[in-house]
Amino acid sequence: MSQQKTSRPKARLPRGFRDRSAGEIAAERRLIETLRDVYESYGFSPLETPAFEYTDALGKFLPDVDRPNEGVFSLKDDDEQWLSLRYDLTAPLARYVAENFQNLAKPFRRYQVGPVWRNEKPGPGRFREFTQFDADTVGSNSPAADAELLMMVCDALEALGLKRGEFEVKLNSRVFLNGILALAEVEPQKCGAVLRALDKYDRLGEPGVRALLGEGRKDESGDFTQGAGLGPSQIAKVMRLFTDDADDLTGVTGFSDLQAIRGILADAGYGADRIAIDLSIVRGLDYYTGPVFEAQLTFPVTNEAGETVVFGSVAGGGRYDDLVARFTGQQVPATGISIGVSRLLTALQSRGLTGEEYPLIVVLSLGDAAQSFATARELRAAGLRAESYVGTKKFGDQLKYADKRGAALVVMEGEDERTKGEITIKDLKLGAEMSKSVESRAEWVGARAAQETVKRADLVAKVRELLARIG
Amino acid sequence: MSQQKTSRPKARLPRGFRDRSAGEIAAERRLIETLRDVYESYGFSPLETPAFEYTDALGKFLPDVDRPNEGVFSLKDDDEQWLSLRYDLTAPLARYVAENFQNLAKPFRRYQVGPVWRNEKPGPGRFREFTQFDADTVGSNSPAADAELLMMVCDALEALGLKRGEFEVKLNSRVFLNGILALAEVEPQKCGAVLRALDKYDRLGEPGVRALLGEGRKDESGDFTQGAGLGPSQIAKVMRLFTDDADDLTGVTGFSDLQAIRGILADAGYGADRIAIDLSIVRGLDYYTGPVFEAQLTFPVTNEAGETVVFGSVAGGGRYDDLVARFTGQQVPATGISIGVSRLLTALQSRGLTGEEYPLIVVLSLGDAAQSFATARELRAAGLRAESYVGTKKFGDQLKYADKRGAALVVMEGEDERTKGEITIKDLKLGAEMSKSVESRAEWVGARAAQETVKRADLVAKVRELLARIG
Repeated sequence: MSQQKTSRPKARLPRGFRDRSAGEIAAERRLIETLRDVYESYGFSPLETPAFEYTDALGKFLPDVDRPNEGVFSLKDDDEQWLSLRYDLTAPLARYVAENFQNLAKPFRRYQVGPVWRNEKPGPGRFREFTQFDADTVGSNSPAADAELLMMVCDALEALGLKRGEFEVKLNSRVFLNGILALAEVEPQKCGAVLRALDKYDRLGEPGVRALLGEGRKDESGDFTQGAGLGPSQIAKVMRLFTDDADDLTGVTGFSDLQAIRGILADAGYGADRIAIDLSIVRGLDYYTGPVFEAQLTFPVTNEAGETVVFGSVAGGGRYDDLVARFTGQQVPATGISIGVSRLLTALQSRGLTGEEYPLIVVLSLGDAAQSFATARELRAAGLRAESYVGTKKFGDQLKYADKRGAALVVMEGEDERTKGEITIKDLKLGAEMSKSVESRAEWVGARAAQETVKRADLVAKVRELLARIG
Repeated sequence: MSQQKTSRPKARLPRGFRDRSAGEIAAERRLIETLRDVYESYGFSPLETPAFEYTDALGKFLPDVDRPNEGVFSLKDDDEQWLSLRYDLTAPLARYVAENFQNLAKPFRRYQVGPVWRNEKPGPGRFREFTQFDADTVGSNSPAADAELLMMVCDALEALGLKRGEFEVKLNSRVFLNGILALAEVEPQKCGAVLRALDKYDRLGEPGVRALLGEGRKDESGDFTQGAGLGPSQIAKVMRLFTDDADDLTGVTGFSDLQAIRGILADAGYGADRIAIDLSIVRGLDYYTGPVFEAQLTFPVTNEAGETVVFGSVAGGGRYDDLVARFTGQQVPATGISIGVSRLLTALQSRGLTGEEYPLIVVLSLGDAAQSFATARELRAAGLRAESYVGTKKFGDQLKYADKRGAALVVMEGEDERTKGEITIKDLKLGAEMSKSVESRAEWVGARAAQETVKRADLVAKVRELLARIG
């Protein structure tokens, strides 16, 4: 932490973190506001927990169960207690519910949006700080609570501008999957490998999953993945998930839960075109105990490598009935769904659904500063987006500034104009080529093509006219 | 970090942190949206930097200059580099500007809102995580840049509903204060104590400051504060700050800066009723190099101890020309102002200026879940705030839930109503007394006073009528 007096620190972002600027912030803000409006309309209330939790409150519910105390940013407080930055919004919710159980209206339904932190190896598009948007219902074991979350996610995706068919919400049940495993008499130590194999159905199809349930599978690159080691009759039983019609499996434990949720959804008008049972959905997290959900976008996008791929998952969740019990000993039924805000934003951007900024007007500062402030204020009062230049007096600098800011129009009121009661407006797009080489006021005034001088009183009307022309 | 398998972790907030629920979150959101609208209308763009910075990038610009590497939350990354959570939004801005200098339109004007973290001893109302809202202009040494920030803060406070006279923005200059110290021939080692004494003018008045400039001062509790140790003629010269008319001090270095800012403000219509020079404003941070600002609320509020006090400072800032230079060696002029969001929110709440939530309607779940979802959806489509109950089937639980949620109305559509094509709406406020002891549906239906049964088709109209009656 010490720093040599003689050397300067380098200005650099910490590894795996990033800065975000106006366009992305505005787009994310609109996305979050839309989700919030939908979630609040369902009566979900916002909750904000702090960035830190005591490390023991996170417990073993860490993103990577094989490394229980890794993956999070932790530090020791000055009273020797370990603190960790939250790695998701579910663990803090469990702590909150356990701490405030008596005072909550139950079912307790809250949403929370905010950054989470993962102390993991960063990579392309993989950051150590990102935004999640979660909704959870705690204290209800009714299938209505699960159904509500799924309807809400559908409504949210549609409110963001996605059309029917561009997304699908998939529903499965861990209890049901366990029922299938029991039916196939899968040995307990093989269950993890079987679930991981099922999870790959989307990507590998039936032959790939069959191989992974059996001896294993060699991929295109020649890498071999060890299989679960099931026998042929076990594999056949497990594969009924994909080969049988789902309704033939109604006898399996856990299927009635799925049917109950599906029934409510169908009655509420949310049919299989939006929400469907998909028996390949597993969801990685260890703590799910019942239904599991995943929202996927179905349209193709171009990934960082320039390949066309189906966008895939933007939200996931499920029922977890043990999370509060770790604190209180009392089982509290809970269900939730989490939206990955950055991923969803990327998807919306690829669809052109993130909206546009209102065009900017820069008022140059040619006389006294108060005058350009007053002009900008007048434009703002008319509902326009205008700013006054506050830097050097150099005319060339001022034009370059407007250019770099991406301004649509520049407004100027110099000595000449003021005397005549006039004001000049320049269309920067139209005049972009000229302005690049212009250094002096005189030269610029000569380049009349893209600018108009009007009566001072007509400023707002003229600006509106020019903006309408730009479109 | 280990946890005994036999013992459960206690559900508790980390020391100095807090959870925030719906009312406060909604009020803060409205506050932030208002500030954002005003700042964006001036053309300030949002920026978001990550929670972490490299510790060496924070350098000595820490909140408490006496303990340069304390006061922040720091941890060692797995590549052995030290990371710290940001303790303000200015140090990350300096890093960002230094890292991206060439690509920025200058003057670079950005706002940033977000949490900051201080590793300090928590106390009542003193948290280790809180929200700041900053605006800074980097790359302009024009007094117009300072004036703009001050106008913007005035506009923001008025947009939040504060009236003229309920706030004042105060302006001073560190250069000017140094000029006064030079005039009084204050020895360098005494300058800090002199500035700290001046800073207390608001609270202690002229005699208190005089004592602190001299030998020292005993307060009401008998505690003695050591003074700066100036001689009588030095004290007289320093006290000209308060005893002379400000315009008699025009000869002092730095006063022309103040006059230039004040001139622009006056021309722009921001007179001394909103922004005034106040020579007692010092601002603690070491890095200010020119004008300093402070926005204060002038109205009385009741503090935690039940005493009536003037609310005081809600924002502060000033010019700091050295912050970017630590990275690049190149001096970049900069000026900024930071609003303490939580403090400002407290002030607005005491003024009743934080708005109200729209009344909530709870639709009970008496038949199939899809039906209560459909009814809630119909109410939402009419622009109302309605939710469907998703918990147990017990009628008493459902009513208690609506009560605890603070619902205004409860809507129910049981077997009876459905057969007759009717629906029942209950005014919870009106029926609060009755409902407390009601456990059965039959008993409740008997308590007619606060409820009405209407044709199913008239639901929305009736709900609107009842909400209007509640007011």
